[in-house]
Amino acid sequence: MTPPKTDARRHHDPSVRGFASDNYAGAHPEVLAALALANGGHQVAYGEDEYTEHLQRVIHSHFGPTAEAFPVFNGTGANVTALQALTDRWGAVICAESAHINVDEGGAPERMGGLKLLTVATPDGKLTPELIDRQAFGWDDEHRAMPQVVSITQNTELGTVYTVEEIRAIVDHAHGLGMKVHLDGARIANAAASLDVPMRAFTNAVGVDVLSYGGTKNGMLYGEAVVVLNPDAVSHMKHLRKLSMQLASKMRFVSVQLEALLARDLWLRNARHSNAMAQRLAQGVHAVDGVEILHPVQANAVFARLPHDVSERLQKRFRFYFWNEAAGDVRWMCSFDTTEDDVDAFVQALKEEMAK
Amino acid sequence: MTPPKTDARRHHDPSVRGFASDNYAGAHPEVLAALALANGGHQVAYGEDEYTEHLQRVIHSHFGPTAEAFPVFNGTGANVTALQALTDRWGAVICAESAHINVDEGGAPERMGGLKLLTVATPDGKLTPELIDRQAFGWDDEHRAMPQVVSITQNTELGTVYTVEEIRAIVDHAHGLGMKVHLDGARIANAAASLDVPMRAFTNAVGVDVLSYGGTKNGMLYGEAVVVLNPDAVSHMKHLRKLSMQLASKMRFVSVQLEALLARDLWLRNARHSNAMAQRLAQGVHAVDGVEILHPVQANAVFARLPHDVSERLQKRFRFYFWNEAAGDVRWMCSFDTTEDDVDAFVQALKEEMAK
Amino acid sequence: MTPPKTDARRHHDPSVRGFASDNYAGAHPEVLAALALANGGHQVAYGEDEYTEHLQRVIHSHFGPTAEAFPVFNGTGANVTALQALTDRWGAVICAESAHINVDEGGAPERMGGLKLLTVATPDGKLTPELIDRQAFGWDDEHRAMPQVVSITQNTELGTVYTVEEIRAIVDHAHGLGMKVHLDGARIANAAASLDVPMRAFTNAVGVDVLSYGGTKNGMLYGEAVVVLNPDAVSHMKHLRKLSMQLASKMRFVSVQLEALLARDLWLRNARHSNAMAQRLAQGVHAVDGVEILHPVQANAVFARLPHDVSERLQKRFRFYFWNEAAGDVRWMCSFDTTEDDVDAFVQALKEEMAK
Amino acid sequence: MTPPKTDARRHHDPSVRGFASDNYAGAHPEVLAALALANGGHQVAYGEDEYTEHLQRVIHSHFGPTAEAFPVFNGTGANVTALQALTDRWGAVICAESAHINVDEGGAPERMGGLKLLTVATPDGKLTPELIDRQAFGWDDEHRAMPQVVSITQNTELGTVYTVEEIRAIVDHAHGLGMKVHLDGARIANAAASLDVPMRAFTNAVGVDVLSYGGTKNGMLYGEAVVVLNPDAVSHMKHLRKLSMQLASKMRFVSVQLEALLARDLWLRNARHSNAMAQRLAQGVHAVDGVEILHPVQANAVFARLPHDVSERLQKRFRFYFWNEAAGDVRWMCSFDTTEDDVDAFVQALKEEMAK
Repeated sequence: MTPPKTDARRHHDPSVRGFASDNYAGAHPEVLAALALANGGHQVAYGEDEYTEHLQRVIHSHFGPTAEAFPVFNGTGANVTALQALTDRWGAVICAESAHINVDEGGAPERMGGLKLLTVATPDGKLTPELIDRQAFGWDDEHRAMPQVVSITQNTELGTVYTVEEIRAIVDHAHGLGMKVHLDGARIANAAASLDVPMRAFTNAVGVDVLSYGGTKNGMLYGEAVVVLNPDAVSHMKHLRKLSMQLASKMRFVSVQLEALLARDLWLRNARHSNAMAQRLAQGVHAVDGVEILHPVQANAVFARLPHDVSERLQKRFRFYFWNEAAGDVRWMCSFDTTEDDVDAFVQALKEEMAK
Repeated sequence: MTPPKTDARRHHDPSVRGFASDNYAGAHPEVLAALALANGGHQVAYGEDEYTEHLQRVIHSHFGPTAEAFPVFNGTGANVTALQALTDRWGAVICAESAHINVDEGGAPERMGGLKLLTVATPDGKLTPELIDRQAFGWDDEHRAMPQVVSITQNTELGTVYTVEEIRAIVDHAHGLGMKVHLDGARIANAAASLDVPMRAFTNAVGVDVLSYGGTKNGMLYGEAVVVLNPDAVSHMKHLRKLSMQLASKMRFVSVQLEALLARDLWLRNARHSNAMAQRLAQGVHAVDGVEILHPVQANAVFARLPHDVSERLQKRFRFYFWNEAAGDVRWMCSFDTTEDDVDAFVQALKEEMAK
Repeated sequence: MTPPKTDARRHHDPSVRGFASDNYAGAHPEVLAALALANGGHQVAYGEDEYTEHLQRVIHSHFGPTAEAFPVFNGTGANVTALQALTDRWGAVICAESAHINVDEGGAPERMGGLKLLTVATPDGKLTPELIDRQAFGWDDEHRAMPQVVSITQNTELGTVYTVEEIRAIVDHAHGLGMKVHLDGARIANAAASLDVPMRAFTNAVGVDVLSYGGTKNGMLYGEAVVVLNPDAVSHMKHLRKLSMQLASKMRFVSVQLEALLARDLWLRNARHSNAMAQRLAQGVHAVDGVEILHPVQANAVFARLPHDVSERLQKRFRFYFWNEAAGDVRWMCSFDTTEDDVDAFVQALKEEMAK
Repeated sequence: MTPPKTDARRHHDPSVRGFASDNYAGAHPEVLAALALANGGHQVAYGEDEYTEHLQRVIHSHFGPTAEAFPVFNGTGANVTALQALTDRWGAVICAESAHINVDEGGAPERMGGLKLLTVATPDGKLTPELIDRQAFGWDDEHRAMPQVVSITQNTELGTVYTVEEIRAIVDHAHGLGMKVHLDGARIANAAASLDVPMRAFTNAVGVDVLSYGGTKNGMLYGEAVVVLNPDAVSHMKHLRKLSMQLASKMRFVSVQLEALLARDLWLRNARHSNAMAQRLAQGVHAVDGVEILHPVQANAVFARLPHDVSERLQKRFRFYFWNEAAGDVRWMCSFDTTEDDVDAFVQALKEEMAK
């Protein structure tokens, strides 16, 4: 491609990749191409454009005819908008202690949404009906924020993936208790690829009410969507999105990116690839003495425990994060643009540093 | 350009433009080109990337060496983040009754920021020291939300532009009373073009403390920035941006768009063009009997009063909004992509509909 | 009464009274006596006591069989609890610019309730259907906080009293537009005494949905109640009261005070007396040249305009407040314990100071 | 005393007492007597009265000359006001999972204060430096609500009492990490009585910054106080109290109750008595086979585990609550008005029911 005309300049080396986060990757070229397609001319702002309208049809093909997508800017925005929609002013949300909404959103649920989170410690980031019951009580007790929603993350923040049956059991349990279910799908594509089922199989097919659909980590520049699966569960989503500061004026550009992912199979190609890279990485690491893999590698993350000094040396060669620095735990993430060579070079570097 | 490879499709006619809003326009091609430049490879997420770092230098060239930009998603997000930074929990914000924060943000300042707005009716959207004084009192009175910030919009929601001296008088007055000044610059480029001065002339040069810098209406796909001009006025902007759900994971793409606008003169070219189109439109309309122009046309908006049925017929040919439907007031906005032909065709259509 | 045994001491002169506020008065002796009656033994905390249960019957006698009282601590608490109950997260409240919720509650509605107030300037503190219409629009527009409630104050903050018909017109108009009506009855007893009708005549009889019932200014030590008149208008009041920090553990003591006021006619005796004192004061002032009475004296407040220096000298002899110091406006409040001698002495003092 | 003249009537049997809560008790007669003393005449509203002024001197005698009391209505109000004062908008509060602010305040900290609570499981309701460290990290990480306060409850919700040294260690640790310390003293008098030290010994003497002083459970009708021990730790408490809906108009009546408790030793007499009754109860229960006492009985609560059906039968004779119904855990509270006969009758009833 001819270098485009723009006053901006390139400030980075596009050949450098690491294992820090799937957020470190840029956008998939097909997504970028979609932006150009949607550009030019005037389109109604704030969601009344033809791209957002078409997006609904694409969403229907994945989640059925009653699903409705509300594009937003980011994952925290999607979650807080969705959870406000699912709760009354007196409501509370049951979630895993390790949930993104609890530990990684800067208190936005509490501060912006006025939401009380009722957390449960989990071994692997996954709730179960039994774990939910530790917080599912006291609906008539005004001294207690009322449990109205169960929020689960698929795949979880620990790289594990709920089976379809596990989610069905959670939903049935929650619904049986009069609660709604929210699924934080920041990496929902990776979960579907891992389970090898359509995304609907573990969302609307089993009764999930509202979904935070993750596009950014799956190859978009920006953008996610609150997808309402059960229209009876919520109302006035547009008002909530606006007051939650998540309403894009030029929404066509969010919608067309989602279309690029979801119209055919880019979402799945990207997810399968990053999952495969994580498997390759896990296999490579498995062969290295002194490195322990911590959770089942079911999506695009590998959690491992290794000597702290090894991690520190390795971080000078490839970017990645400690997950629990005191314990020596690290997280290695693969993304849609991770190559086999990247993985192999990383494993080789790990071996070298372990040998020092 | 070869049609790009993507599963998304074009759903609109890029030759259609109207006068509804500068948000209806897409992105400037040079901005779109910048995205490609920043793509590829891995960059640290959440603002530690090289594009955001470089953006600071670009911002310095416009606003001086102590300015710091915090890219965010949209204008409401910029305003609410900035105003939270400028207020204590007991603080309030003095603004014009017509301010965007008061009438167009879905209650986000109150709901998300817990902010009390102390509004003042204005003839033309512009505050003055005298108007500010109608709300600037009672600092020691705990029964009153404490006025801590004056927020002005430049150019205003009514298409008028504060002179440098008018803003200086406001800032001096506010500072003299111990208050800070926020400038909502959703269309700051249009104001600078209108005044024919650098943006700093009516911001940091006269003491404005924090600025919501508007990029979207100036030609970006999405993105604005909170620009801190007075570093002593605020702290912990990064925390506030995150908890306000305005932290972009792939921030490089916001930053590079701002760079494309601001590195040389695209911001000014776009603004001058849309202002010029508004002047052309005003002149064309001026010649039409029965159409009254309501406010001085100083930027890219023309407010007019005309028979309601004429507006309705005209809306079938070009999109635009009623501003005050009962009064017959309408708003016509020009944008960076409005052409002389667009304006001339619109004026011709107006004449035709008036003649019916 | 024998001086009671207590380690506390008397620190004030109980013979001194002024015209600053009906909040400056203490409690009516019959109210104080009621506390002793309710004391002793154990009663279920948080509202399951027999006094709160009995209070419902007393409330029914005033407001009909479907009314339900939720005792709270203070007026701001009552208002914010009530308005949260009447609004969705996206809702807003139309009120007079001079409303207590807008100017005297420290921003609690916005900060604690996340409520947007849509204010209207009024000549006399009273809304009308026409004034309401200035803010009653845009229900489908997500950019606007949705008007869901009209809140009026009876009697108003300016000492004026809505007629039954005026409130009926407001309620009919609001209901016709799909909005609910809240009445801030901080001085509802004075209004009923002024109109010489039962309180129900201008509340549930004309369709008011929820009432903030004012007890403190009517002779209680502390305590108000949210009275739900239309049970279909709200739900989960107990949860809202609790999360609004308005749930009294020893609620029997709030309830028995309300019973003391409302079981027979203490509420009315107190209100009639303070109203009569205001009439006496107004008549006395009327005879004084150079003092202008500003609003109709319909309850227990007299607003007047007089020379600033006279007010300042007078304030050294009797406590009262400036209402608008720049204009020379003052407010003189009478309370249940104001005596004829108090009024006559005040008028005499006013004459003396005017003559200086 | 002659039955007082009031239209209210007695609806309860003042000879009935149970073990449900110290909130079920009424007011101590000396407290009630104090109200009469403060009544009559006019006093400036909202805290500028002579009782509130005098209260400061009483507070100084307990907590030193820099302490300042801000009377409020209830414990939730005190806690939320105090914690807002101690945190920035981005701040969070570390507390025990069992803390009242986390489990018994209806989500008020999150909903009203926008506060994120970072909870830690504890065996006995007591935090330690080590337990605090589980949440005390990430101050520079904007993705995490910033730990700014440690909040402890003395005595704890489980009836245990921190030693002076335990609190000193917590405060030193928190201060060393740049955090402030809040002490929820809903039952602070019981703790002081238990430790047999002045209240200052485990508050300002060891560096606690702000205290929620508990009056209601200690014998008041209503009322608590935020006591600022470290004036450098907070500011604008009056504004925060008002916006938190905790400003009493007739504040003299809260202040004089606090004076009645604190001027000499009523606070201590009441606390010692209720503690002694809990000891008597614990000893009586100790002798009953099949009943296990769960936590050290250090204040006025006894937690026990016994067969569920026994508890249910016993509840028909004396009111008390299950603490963890599934486990068969109950809580028995003694109050200032619990008599030795009450305790003995309860133990006898327990024996009888266990024998069935």
